[in-house]
Amino acid sequence: MKLSIQQKNLLKHINIAQRAIGTHTTLPVLEGIYLIAKDNTLELIATDLKISIHSKVDALVKEEGEIIVNSNLFGNIIRKLPDEIVELEANDNLLQIKCAYSSFSIHLYEEDEYPSIFNEENGDMVTISSGSLKDSISQTVFATSQELTKPILTGVLMNQKSKKIDFVALDGYRIAIKTLMMEKENEKQVIIPAKALQELNRILPEEGDTLIKILKGSVVFEFEGTRLFTRLLDGNFIQYETVIESVFSTYFSVNRKSLEESIERAALLSREERTNLIKLDLNSGRLTITSNTEIGHVTEIVDGKQEGENLIIAFNARYLMEGIKAMRESEIKMKFSGPLRACIIEELNENPDFIYVVLPVKLAE
Amino acid sequence: MKLSIQQKNLLKHINIAQRAIGTHTTLPVLEGIYLIAKDNTLELIATDLKISIHSKVDALVKEEGEIIVNSNLFGNIIRKLPDEIVELEANDNLLQIKCAYSSFSIHLYEEDEYPSIFNEENGDMVTISSGSLKDSISQTVFATSQELTKPILTGVLMNQKSKKIDFVALDGYRIAIKTLMMEKENEKQVIIPAKALQELNRILPEEGDTLIKILKGSVVFEFEGTRLFTRLLDGNFIQYETVIESVFSTYFSVNRKSLEESIERAALLSREERTNLIKLDLNSGRLTITSNTEIGHVTEIVDGKQEGENLIIAFNARYLMEGIKAMRESEIKMKFSGPLRACIIEELNENPDFIYVVLPVKLAE
Repeated sequence: MKLSIQQKNLLKHINIAQRAIGTHTTLPVLEGIYLIAKDNTLELIATDLKISIHSKVDALVKEEGEIIVNSNLFGNIIRKLPDEIVELEANDNLLQIKCAYSSFSIHLYEEDEYPSIFNEENGDMVTISSGSLKDSISQTVFATSQELTKPILTGVLMNQKSKKIDFVALDGYRIAIKTLMMEKENEKQVIIPAKALQELNRILPEEGDTLIKILKGSVVFEFEGTRLFTRLLDGNFIQYETVIESVFSTYFSVNRKSLEESIERAALLSREERTNLIKLDLNSGRLTITSNTEIGHVTEIVDGKQEGENLIIAFNARYLMEGIKAMRESEIKMKFSGPLRACIIEELNENPDFIYVVLPVKLAE
Repeated sequence: MKLSIQQKNLLKHINIAQRAIGTHTTLPVLEGIYLIAKDNTLELIATDLKISIHSKVDALVKEEGEIIVNSNLFGNIIRKLPDEIVELEANDNLLQIKCAYSSFSIHLYEEDEYPSIFNEENGDMVTISSGSLKDSISQTVFATSQELTKPILTGVLMNQKSKKIDFVALDGYRIAIKTLMMEKENEKQVIIPAKALQELNRILPEEGDTLIKILKGSVVFEFEGTRLFTRLLDGNFIQYETVIESVFSTYFSVNRKSLEESIERAALLSREERTNLIKLDLNSGRLTITSNTEIGHVTEIVDGKQEGENLIIAFNARYLMEGIKAMRESEIKMKFSGPLRACIIEELNENPDFIYVVLPVKLAE
């Protein structure tokens, strides 16, 4: 293998591929990046066996070839080089790296040790703007379950019905649903592990489109020369549509930032305790948030616009706050059906495309 | 106690006082900030028994008084409040905090539990511009020893002779010396713990002067309403002047940034190993830096201006690099007296006020 490439371009794609390297690998070769030089393209591959990233970048290839190099060391070297032309040349068991006045030679892994786990076949395809996909991930992935006893809930459901795709995450305490409208009709349900979506979110560009190919038991996201493969979670997702209330007795519209800051302050006292409890008292357009714990007492007041009955209801502050933080609009609307039923939070605009459902905590009499 | 104060001013002084709170306190009250309201001033005091910070800020005091409040909780609450007027009022065992639409009440510590360790008496006084003091700390403190078996070397010597103050740190492998010129003559030697200087450096302003008062066994730094007390280290410092070479056989002047980046890259391979060894080969104005380790080989070339003999010498990369990073000028000068004697590094300007001495490593034959 022999090629030359601009330092900045190489570094960008190393950073992308490194997102797939696990922190605790049992197989030493998985600490490596697999480099393939072919047809004036350098492809960088990394995997932790659950997800796999393949990233392609233009390079001046003088001799085709394939090598595996330690990801950490290779990344650290390229990161410290000046933004000039980098020459890579592999001979025997060594990679030569030359750039300006620097010259490195580092050891390689054996190629035949590298596992090949994702085979691309034909699959169902969906194209989504990368910006919308980023939003859909960050507005839902935080609501996935951390409990490995319910593996299905550690993923986000991507559910296309007709021209509508719902991204849905829930953990038994709250549900986050983001809806995108598509041009083409389709019917498809897949559950994507949260970890894969978090890594995808870090490398997705703001601009352009992402092609999603749904394969057997796996899915691949393609954008700007990069493909991220991940296994899918197997099983039936909860019928989330049926658990969402549709009849409400109280509505409260409020400035998102004011509400968020007040809950954040109220949670300063409650967060030390397991239940993380805050009480909301909604009365004639004024919301009074209180929290009473061993270390002290807090009262916060937020004014808004109320319709319907007054209400006293309690929440785990974290679950309430995370949903409000995921909203984008400056004004939001909370909808209640009494103190023991789920609260629904929406953005206040003409076509709300994100809703958050959070269960209250029953107050002791 | 009852007072009102602008949120931003209060937060600034909480942040300052919190630098003295230890991470592992055995005495619970040391997790507290001692607040004293008196004469339209709020004083905030915190200590870990080794250092102590007293910070004063103007406040509208309606009722004088003293309380101790949990530093972490108090800081977190004030940090989250809007920048408006904060009202503090202590009654019985509770502190009320009111600001805009927020109201907190949190528990206090018992006052009589708070230790009083630093008593200010009259002492010898030195005034230094805060900017120069910051420089003097950051250019020396990194070279103090981490080994508690030689406690004297875990501090920085502040050594005034006539109108010259040397700040000196050494750990047996390198010496860093920063020299300031004073207007008044004095003779004084004190050794200040590195930890205290690091905390001082974080809260010292860029502008204005710092008054240093040397007391019995302790020293206090005063600036902008804040006083930082620290115990001094007891013992005789090494006679550092005598160990500095004065006859040289090789001089090398070089761009600091080029040299720093080359050493940093060369150290990428050596830093995994205990000795962290890099070899410098200086020949006719060209410096070739190499490092050979189990994971690979690196060669770096840096051109400069050489006077005197060619030379091959080896260093621990970290000790060499830390000294070069502490330099401020764009050009630096290295002075050598052969491969087994200390190298001296200076800034290349008319009045170099910082010198760094680093011992070489003997290469195996």
